[in-house]
Amino acid sequence: MPEIQVVLVNPLYEGNVGSVARVMKNFGYTHLALVDPCPLRNEARAMASHAQDVLENARRVTLDEVLAESAVVVATTGEVAKSVCTPTRMPYYTPHELKEMIADVDGTVSVLFGRENSGLLNEELSRAGIICTIPTSPIYPILNLSHAVGIVCYELADLQRGEYALASPFEMESLYAHMDRFLDLVDHPPHKREITLLLARRLLSRAMPTIREASTIHGILRRTEQRLTGALPRNDDDTCPPKGT
Amino acid sequence: MPEIQVVLVNPLYEGNVGSVARVMKNFGYTHLALVDPCPLRNEARAMASHAQDVLENARRVTLDEVLAESAVVVATTGEVAKSVCTPTRMPYYTPHELKEMIADVDGTVSVLFGRENSGLLNEELSRAGIICTIPTSPIYPILNLSHAVGIVCYELADLQRGEYALASPFEMESLYAHMDRFLDLVDHPPHKREITLLLARRLLSRAMPTIREASTIHGILRRTEQRLTGALPRNDDDTCPPKGT
Repeated sequence: MPEIQVVLVNPLYEGNVGSVARVMKNFGYTHLALVDPCPLRNEARAMASHAQDVLENARRVTLDEVLAESAVVVATTGEVAKSVCTPTRMPYYTPHELKEMIADVDGTVSVLFGRENSGLLNEELSRAGIICTIPTSPIYPILNLSHAVGIVCYELADLQRGEYALASPFEMESLYAHMDRFLDLVDHPPHKREITLLLARRLLSRAMPTIREASTIHGILRRTEQRLTGALPRNDDDTCPPKGT
Repeated sequence: MPEIQVVLVNPLYEGNVGSVARVMKNFGYTHLALVDPCPLRNEARAMASHAQDVLENARRVTLDEVLAESAVVVATTGEVAKSVCTPTRMPYYTPHELKEMIADVDGTVSVLFGRENSGLLNEELSRAGIICTIPTSPIYPILNLSHAVGIVCYELADLQRGEYALASPFEMESLYAHMDRFLDLVDHPPHKREITLLLARRLLSRAMPTIREASTIHGILRRTEQRLTGALPRNDDDTCPPKGT
């Protein structure tokens, strides 16, 4: 992926600029450029929170400079054209589509965001190679500036969530086999067995248990079996270490 | 899709509550519930902007009431467990995964968001059926409350962008044929023709021209042909009505 630069054109409210700095950093982006911004004082710093560095390093630039240094310039707008006959805001792409489109770009992709009250001027939009819009509801289509930047950064970064250990197919089969033996022990009718085990398989499969969850079920079955057969009690409901160790 | 309710648990800053109301409405959501909120005054109203209705209709509820009225309760957290051995925040799903998981739910899905400084308490998280987290950058993993709500609403709503008229396959073939005739007119070498037309086809195909763009190219080729052959000038570069009509 190319380097992403967020460019705010003539932002009017310093609180929004601070919020933009914060949400950029939330998605790992630190290159902020400002074209003719409002003064940035305490409110910008307050909203930026732990993104003071992004705010302080924000470059003051002109649109000409942005064009000269960028491989691609994207302009965002909350108002798109209705017809192909007005090409200033046409065609337009969602942030998700944008991510795919710029994947192979070498260099900087600058994404322009306009004024809070009026967006980008036609002459600013005309300088962009790609128009981007976030689909919103007709009941209130215009997003706050920092919310719009947040969603674009969220889509472009496309960060993955952490991984965690799901029970393996082997462990799941072992659990279904355990359930089968348990159902024998409680005299579950054999003619209903197949369908009962199928329901268990279907329910648990789609729930995708973690190793902990699967072993907890094993543990509860075992505990119950021990009570039923009068075997010596064991306290090993699952494989995780007890609290306090 | 089920009805979505956004639940803020003990929000501390009225400006955030106002921003939440706004970004909810941006994605068509109007059901906001508040558990033990801070007082909402002028700053909440200022940030809510044209979402005064969402703010004013926000219900004051307890967590017990939310559980009683919801088919599914989702708790969001910025801090997830590292191991399956700590199940309070495990397993966890992204907003995108959440959308798929709740697609067939009948009734209300309540999505809980915690305090700005400390999130949700373990006892609050324990009452949820699904844990949701927005993957963020390790350089600054905690999102502002309204930015988090915005991204979850954006994903759950999954609104589509508008459609616009792309040039049809027939129109594109007609364009390539026109280019071929044009290249004859300018004595483009026949042995290079196939590959030149292939490059044009590949470039234009992936650019997916609109009807307007395709007809503009036709018009420019025609205009040039007229100059080359001395034919009478015509001003019909494309199919869209001229400005002013």
